[in-house]
Amino acid sequence: MPSIEILSIGDELLSGKTVNTNASYLSKRLEMEGYEVGRHTVTSDCTISLQEMMKEASNRCEVVLCTGGLGPTVDDCTRKAACELFKDKLVYNESVAKKLVERFGSKLSTLEDQSTLPAGAKVLDNLIGTASGSIFEHKNRVVILLPGVPKEMESMFDLGVLPYLKQNFPSSERRFVKPLHLFGLYESDVTPLLNELAKQFHDVQFAIYPHVGKLTIHLKALGGNHPEEFIREPLKKLTDAFSDHIFDSPSGTFEEAVHISLLEKKSTVSCAESCTGGALAQAFTKIPGASEHFLGSIIAYSNKVKMNTLKVSEKTLIDHGAVSEQAAREMVIGAQKLTGSDYALAVTGIAGPDGGTLEKPVGTVWCGIATPNEVNAFRLNLRGDRELIVQQSVQSLLSALYRKINI
Amino acid sequence: MPSIEILSIGDELLSGKTVNTNASYLSKRLEMEGYEVGRHTVTSDCTISLQEMMKEASNRCEVVLCTGGLGPTVDDCTRKAACELFKDKLVYNESVAKKLVERFGSKLSTLEDQSTLPAGAKVLDNLIGTASGSIFEHKNRVVILLPGVPKEMESMFDLGVLPYLKQNFPSSERRFVKPLHLFGLYESDVTPLLNELAKQFHDVQFAIYPHVGKLTIHLKALGGNHPEEFIREPLKKLTDAFSDHIFDSPSGTFEEAVHISLLEKKSTVSCAESCTGGALAQAFTKIPGASEHFLGSIIAYSNKVKMNTLKVSEKTLIDHGAVSEQAAREMVIGAQKLTGSDYALAVTGIAGPDGGTLEKPVGTVWCGIATPNEVNAFRLNLRGDRELIVQQSVQSLLSALYRKINI
Repeated sequence: MPSIEILSIGDELLSGKTVNTNASYLSKRLEMEGYEVGRHTVTSDCTISLQEMMKEASNRCEVVLCTGGLGPTVDDCTRKAACELFKDKLVYNESVAKKLVERFGSKLSTLEDQSTLPAGAKVLDNLIGTASGSIFEHKNRVVILLPGVPKEMESMFDLGVLPYLKQNFPSSERRFVKPLHLFGLYESDVTPLLNELAKQFHDVQFAIYPHVGKLTIHLKALGGNHPEEFIREPLKKLTDAFSDHIFDSPSGTFEEAVHISLLEKKSTVSCAESCTGGALAQAFTKIPGASEHFLGSIIAYSNKVKMNTLKVSEKTLIDHGAVSEQAAREMVIGAQKLTGSDYALAVTGIAGPDGGTLEKPVGTVWCGIATPNEVNAFRLNLRGDRELIVQQSVQSLLSALYRKINI
Repeated sequence: MPSIEILSIGDELLSGKTVNTNASYLSKRLEMEGYEVGRHTVTSDCTISLQEMMKEASNRCEVVLCTGGLGPTVDDCTRKAACELFKDKLVYNESVAKKLVERFGSKLSTLEDQSTLPAGAKVLDNLIGTASGSIFEHKNRVVILLPGVPKEMESMFDLGVLPYLKQNFPSSERRFVKPLHLFGLYESDVTPLLNELAKQFHDVQFAIYPHVGKLTIHLKALGGNHPEEFIREPLKKLTDAFSDHIFDSPSGTFEEAVHISLLEKKSTVSCAESCTGGALAQAFTKIPGASEHFLGSIIAYSNKVKMNTLKVSEKTLIDHGAVSEQAAREMVIGAQKLTGSDYALAVTGIAGPDGGTLEKPVGTVWCGIATPNEVNAFRLNLRGDRELIVQQSVQSLLSALYRKINI
C-alpha cells in the first residue's frame, strides 16, 4: 500500500477563515478504497514555504495530494512551486485552452492563465471550474495538484485521481472496518470493555467516536486473507454486552434510524417542546422525507401557549410548575390529540444558564412519551451548558421513542 | 512574535470522519490576538508517529498547540507521548482528583486515569469535561496539550492558554482589527468596494468571512503606534455604503442582535413554521433569555396542524396549496392570534430534495411577517440543498423582522 499525505494550501485555511473540509473528504474517500493517509498538513500559499512542504512530503511518501492555489489570482502559486521543485516549466496548453473556450467562451478573462500548465505533468480535467489539475511523476513518487474549491476538487479526485491511483498504486492490504452504532451510551460506559478487548485481541484496533448520547465503535482488522474473521469474536462480545443500545442506519445517524423505524411501522409522531425550543423537531425534520411521519411540533415557550394550544391546565402550572411530571404528561397528551399522531414526545426543562432553583436546578428536564396505548414521563438531571442540555434532552427522547417503536 | 504551529491528533481526523474545526478555531483566535500560525498538522494517535510529529514541530517553532488524545480510552496517548519526549512521567495529581470528585462525584469511572498527569507540566483546568490540559516548558519552547472535544478545547484555550501566551510570548506587533457585521448581503455584494479600498488603503488588510445571508468584514491595520487610525477612512466608506445592513452584538451573531432589539423594544414574537421544521424557533431559543420575548412556534408540517392550530382555511390549502402567499399570510396571522405576540413570522416552502414542481421548484419559499399594524408576505427563490434552503429562509425572516423592529 502506498504511503499517502495530503497537503492543503492556502492562507484562508491557516488563518482559520476556512475549515479544511478538503482533507477530510480525501481521507474519507481514500479510506473507503482501502488506502490510508499518514498526515495532513496545511501551509501558507507563499511559494517558498509551499515548495519546502511539498519537498518534505514527497521525501516521506509515495503519493502527495495537494489542494488549493491553482486559481488565477496573485496568491495562487502551487503550479509554480511544483514546477520549480520538479524542474519543469509552465507552457500554454492548446488542448486545455480549446476545452475552456468551448465551455466558457473565448472572453474568459482567465483563459491564458488557466491554460498555462506544467509541461511535464499529466493534465487532470476540471469538469466544473477552470483550474486543471496536474500529476507530477518523479522516481516512483507522484505529487498531484488539485483545486481548492471543494466541488471541483471532489469531482477531479473521483473521476481522475482515484482511477490513476488504483492503476498505479493498487491498495495491496486487505482490511475490514466494522462500525457499531450505539445510542443511549457515553464513552465511559464502553471504555472498560473496550480496554479489555484491546488486551485480548491484538489483531483488532478499537476506536470510539463519541457524540452526545450516542457513539460509534470502529473495529478495524488488518492483514491476512480474511481480516473480517479477526473481528468476529470481539464484535460478538460487544453486541452481547450492549444489545439494548445497538442501532443501524445507512448514514450511521440515530435520527435516521428513528426515521426508518417510523416509516417501517407506518407510524406518525408529533412533539410538544419547551426548553428544546425546536431542536427536537429539527431532529426529525432534517431528514429528507420526514413529512411522511412527522406531523408537527408545538413549541410552547410561554405558559399561555402551553394552555391555549396543548391544553395544559392552569392548575398544573400553578401547583406543579411548567417543569414537572404533570406538565410533561399534559403536554404530550395535548400534542397527540391536537395532531392525531400515533406517538408523541414532550419536553419541559430548565436549559439555563438562568432559571434554576434549589429544587429544580439548571439541567432539570421532564420528558413525556405517548404511544397509542400509554403515556409515560421521566426526569433527566443533566449537566453542561444550554446547548448540551438541549442536545442531551433530544437524544434521550429519541432513544425513548426508538425503544417504544421497536419493542 | 513567537512562531506557532498547531498539531491535531486523532485517527478520526486522519480518516476524515471528523473535520478539523479545532485548528480553524485556534488559528482564528490567535490571529485576532495578533499571533500568526505557521502550519497545521494532523497526525494519527499512534504514540510513535505522534511523538515524532511533536518533536519535529517543537524543533521548528516556539509554541506547539496540540489538540486531542487526552481522553481515558486506549487510543488516547498524547500525554504519554509528550512525557516520553520531555522525559517526564505521569503521576497522580491529588488536587485535580479532588476537583473532579467535586464536579462529577467519586464514582467517576475515569477518575484515576484523568487525575494522572505529567509531573513536570503546568495543569490547565477543564471547566467542562474531565480531561485536564498540560503546558510543557523546555528551553524557551512550549508544547501545550488541549483536549479534542471542541467546547472543552475552546474554553481551555480562552481561559488558560491565551493569558499564558500573552504573558510569556507577547505579540510584539501592534495591530488593530475592526469587525464590521452585515446582514442580508452576500460576498459578491461587497467584493467590488473592498477591492477598490484595498488598492486605495495599503496599510489596511480587508478580509471577508461569509455566512449564510450575512457576513463579517475584518479591517486589519498593522504597525505604527496607532494602527486604529489607518482604518478610520475605509471604515467610514464601508458603513456609508452598507448602512442599511449593519448590525452589532457582543457575540457578533445576527441572532443576538435580533434578541437585543426585541428586549429593547419590550416586544414579543412567535412563529409558524413548515419547511424550516424548528430551525426558525432555534434561531431565537438558542440565545439565553429568549423566553423574555419568544412565546412559541407552531411547527405545522402536516396540513391538519396548519388548519387545527393556525386556522389556515382548507380552501386556501386546496386553491393555492400549502406553499403560497395566502397560506403564509394565514399562518402568520394564526401564530400572532394564538400566542398574542407583537410580531410573528411564518414560513412555508419546499426544502427538497423532493416535492418540487415546475411551478414551485425546490427552493420556493413563502414568508409572512406580522407586526402590530400590518401583515406582509414575500417569496424567496432559493438554491442549494435542504439544509441551505432552511438556513437561508431563517436568515431572510430574521432580516425582515430586524428591519421591522428597528424602522
